[in-house]
Amino acid sequence: MNSVAAMRTSQLYFSTLKEAPSEAELISHKLMLRAGLIKRLGSGLYTWMPLGLRVLRKVEAVIRDEMNKAGAQEMLMPAVQPAELWQETGRWDVFGPQMLKITDRHERQFCFGPTHEEVITDIARSELRSYKQLPVSFYQVQTKFRDEIRPRFGVMRAREFMMKDAYSFHADFESLQATYGVMYQSYSNVFTRLGLKFRAVAADTGAIGGSGSHEFHVLADAGEDLLAYCPDSDYAANTELAEAFAPAEPRRAPAEAMRDVDTPKQTSCEAVAALLDISIERTVKLLALMTSANELVIALLRGDHNLNEVKLAKVEGMADFRFASDEEIRAAFNCPPGFLGPVGIPAGVRVIADRTVAVMSDFVCGANKPKFHLAGVNFGRDLPEPNIVADIRNVVNGDASPDGKGTLEICRGIEVGHIFQLRTTYAEKMKCQFTDADGSLKTMEMGCYGIGVSRIVAAAIEQNHDERGIKYPAAIAPFTVAIVPMGYHRSETIKAAADALYADFVAAGIDVLLDDRNERPGSMFADMELIGIPHRITIGEKGLAEGMVEYIARAGGEMEKIALADAVRILSEK
Amino acid sequence: MNSVAAMRTSQLYFSTLKEAPSEAELISHKLMLRAGLIKRLGSGLYTWMPLGLRVLRKVEAVIRDEMNKAGAQEMLMPAVQPAELWQETGRWDVFGPQMLKITDRHERQFCFGPTHEEVITDIARSELRSYKQLPVSFYQVQTKFRDEIRPRFGVMRAREFMMKDAYSFHADFESLQATYGVMYQSYSNVFTRLGLKFRAVAADTGAIGGSGSHEFHVLADAGEDLLAYCPDSDYAANTELAEAFAPAEPRRAPAEAMRDVDTPKQTSCEAVAALLDISIERTVKLLALMTSANELVIALLRGDHNLNEVKLAKVEGMADFRFASDEEIRAAFNCPPGFLGPVGIPAGVRVIADRTVAVMSDFVCGANKPKFHLAGVNFGRDLPEPNIVADIRNVVNGDASPDGKGTLEICRGIEVGHIFQLRTTYAEKMKCQFTDADGSLKTMEMGCYGIGVSRIVAAAIEQNHDERGIKYPAAIAPFTVAIVPMGYHRSETIKAAADALYADFVAAGIDVLLDDRNERPGSMFADMELIGIPHRITIGEKGLAEGMVEYIARAGGEMEKIALADAVRILSEK
Repeated sequence: MNSVAAMRTSQLYFSTLKEAPSEAELISHKLMLRAGLIKRLGSGLYTWMPLGLRVLRKVEAVIRDEMNKAGAQEMLMPAVQPAELWQETGRWDVFGPQMLKITDRHERQFCFGPTHEEVITDIARSELRSYKQLPVSFYQVQTKFRDEIRPRFGVMRAREFMMKDAYSFHADFESLQATYGVMYQSYSNVFTRLGLKFRAVAADTGAIGGSGSHEFHVLADAGEDLLAYCPDSDYAANTELAEAFAPAEPRRAPAEAMRDVDTPKQTSCEAVAALLDISIERTVKLLALMTSANELVIALLRGDHNLNEVKLAKVEGMADFRFASDEEIRAAFNCPPGFLGPVGIPAGVRVIADRTVAVMSDFVCGANKPKFHLAGVNFGRDLPEPNIVADIRNVVNGDASPDGKGTLEICRGIEVGHIFQLRTTYAEKMKCQFTDADGSLKTMEMGCYGIGVSRIVAAAIEQNHDERGIKYPAAIAPFTVAIVPMGYHRSETIKAAADALYADFVAAGIDVLLDDRNERPGSMFADMELIGIPHRITIGEKGLAEGMVEYIARAGGEMEKIALADAVRILSEK
Repeated sequence: MNSVAAMRTSQLYFSTLKEAPSEAELISHKLMLRAGLIKRLGSGLYTWMPLGLRVLRKVEAVIRDEMNKAGAQEMLMPAVQPAELWQETGRWDVFGPQMLKITDRHERQFCFGPTHEEVITDIARSELRSYKQLPVSFYQVQTKFRDEIRPRFGVMRAREFMMKDAYSFHADFESLQATYGVMYQSYSNVFTRLGLKFRAVAADTGAIGGSGSHEFHVLADAGEDLLAYCPDSDYAANTELAEAFAPAEPRRAPAEAMRDVDTPKQTSCEAVAALLDISIERTVKLLALMTSANELVIALLRGDHNLNEVKLAKVEGMADFRFASDEEIRAAFNCPPGFLGPVGIPAGVRVIADRTVAVMSDFVCGANKPKFHLAGVNFGRDLPEPNIVADIRNVVNGDASPDGKGTLEICRGIEVGHIFQLRTTYAEKMKCQFTDADGSLKTMEMGCYGIGVSRIVAAAIEQNHDERGIKYPAAIAPFTVAIVPMGYHRSETIKAAADALYADFVAAGIDVLLDDRNERPGSMFADMELIGIPHRITIGEKGLAEGMVEYIARAGGEMEKIALADAVRILSEK
């Protein structure tokens, strides 16, 4: 990149748009199109135009540097992969239609690699034969393809995209854990250096175990994932995985008598609470569920809470539960949905109460008869204690953090990285073995570590923009400084000063863009703001006569007058 | 690359092989496998292992730098391209089975791009609207796929490969020619900087015109193309295109009488010349040809010359000629092939004589009767002067150079670059137009410029190797200097000296590889030679006691003793 670190707009092809094409929904997609960073070729297919590629390359460079520091070695595997390898792991058939399958001229089957576990394991089993060669980590920065059913949001969910994928091989689990820790830190370094607000969250990896996988999310309103994090600690988790504790206070003794309340049209807790003018936190809702053995089970949640199906499925007997059908509900309760409640249900029907519900008293719930709810309901008095008390809900804002260090906040995240302890899943299926120090043949432990390189650009823009355009973090801005001369084509003095300042920035090794177009000042300012250059220096005739130029930061703040002679020094220190 | 410019073998994954896998035919393929630069994934699919990727990246960096200097701007287009664009130019159907076609989950057709003219023209027609935006050049370094029927020679003719492709757009032909000239020079700079012996040769571009395309070839015995070049000038051409002049001396008067010679088994000019103990340059061979109108035509070539079908096809009436079948030959000559000659053939059969044949006298040719040839044959006396005299043969070693500056030599070349003046071929089909200064709508002129990035690595090795392995040119060696300590794990003194020297090279910005493996010296030397590090410094106990180390160049030359203290300075100057 060095030889093109500095440019003049007359040498740089870029085109900006006042309005984004209507296809764009996300703000990052709109801004990337308006700033001319990308251009659509087809559904989920984007060209990185020169200005966009500069940003992508800066992201790549930071990732590469951290991967190298983590001791991973760069390689480059083919995009096109033979079906045979995927058949060995069984993923040829189960990966689904996201895999772009290809048949070559000899009628042999391939895919455009959506990921590279099979290929790297094939390399490892033939290259790595001895414990002396372990551990070792490889990575690549490469183009992948996933045939999304509905590609959208520009490069955020494109079909062809750039990914950094790393893979590590180990003689034992301890070694995998050590490298996993290094990679975790390396990923944190990457996102920190890129200037992004991010969180690492433990991911649900099923059989692999909770601590065996972390997702790295850039926090942004447009994220597809809901995260719970504690601002006072490192804790963060997918809302679906974060544990919800019971309230610290114990259940209070009943204070009210149970009574019917008339709720002619109120079929939701919100509506009932509004009618009774009480907090929704005093209501309880009932979910009618069926186990895989077609046994009716009742789940109770506080009115404002949502069921977490993953948690519920972990309760004994609920592994393959489903929601009861309207017919099943009528048969069991003789009451329409919307008025169901736990009082007076037949003995033998299991009741699972969420931890929060279990400590409620004097609550409001359905009366099991049309158009009525019950108020002042209490466990132990009006209905039996629940059969099971468990954490079966999603956490909400203000819940206690599971690490005991404060309360949780809910935010949205864009997944930009994912690290996995794969253990021996792939190695076993592909017979990826090594000879250990004692001469025995063992299966390798394996980790994999992915970053969505192109997605990071979109995620960074989601997190850093305003109504005028992109506000890049310094590390990934296509240029660090923009020089905007007022009258470059009109005044020899202005031109000379602008050219000299440009040369000084180049000499100082600062990525500078000199806007030498013959455009109106307003239009040049708007473009420099839209494309997100962090620092702008304006050279005007009046100021120049006094040796002064104007400086403004894209991040915000007032315009400052600075001495032309000090400009490079001042900007070097920013 | 900076942060990994220097490495220790203990950090670098590499594995060398004593023998190349039997699949490898070419020396570059064998050496790339033996040195562990690449690893085969499938037919025509190779992984670039860490050591190989370093070399590939160095090639890329030089190309990128020269492209930027030439004013081209880097971008990155998708690998997967929609069929619709190719249908616009008609190439979807005519590109042939080399194009890897893909059907996505929605049954839409795509290809894994074998080249990007259609995509870039699609971008140009929507981005470039005014003459003010022209000329402009874009390039990318990208993965391409061509489904070769028989992929072989490793990365030399792989299916998936890395290419640099550039495209320029112009308001007029003069502008295209100017950029073409810049690109020609840029390509020459690239190959010069890479340290390769190369030639630019004019390519046959059919309708586009002879000067509108040049191929850049690395000269190497393994090349698939035969080139004619003049060592005393810049002249170079594909042998099929180089013009063969008539000998400078005119035809001499007949000196011999025509006579039958008995050639019972001699059916070739070589055999006849051997039997008669004369130079093959005194023989003439006859080729029986049929025009598209099924008219018999005879072509005469000197015995040692080969027909150039491209040239012959340019002779009037010969556009779609074919060789006569054995039946057609027997019908016309009443004589088996091997004894055919131009004497006594029926009037009306056209005779095309190569320029060289036309000035021959007293020559030997077939007698048109089995087991006989004629000697002492002369045009004008024994047979009519030829109907047409033309250049219809391939040039050979020693022919006069068409530029009049010496004689030609024939060599083999590996095509690593190709530049084209496409003119308006694609732009017309895809309606790629711009508004000119006078307000009129015009079609853009277009150029394209390709370099086979991954192929260059193989070509460089073909040109630079010996029996011990690779001898990289300095610009693309994975490391510049290898430090091989004798006893790194045995002697604290050796280890300290090696580590200190390594640190000094790192500080001097020189790519250094410290071989800190616990291997036998011979094995370490062999590896460093095989992988082609240009300079090697050996640190041994005896020398070190006197402050000396041993230096040897991979390119050849004697081992030298140099002062350890001077090593970095001496190597910096190499």
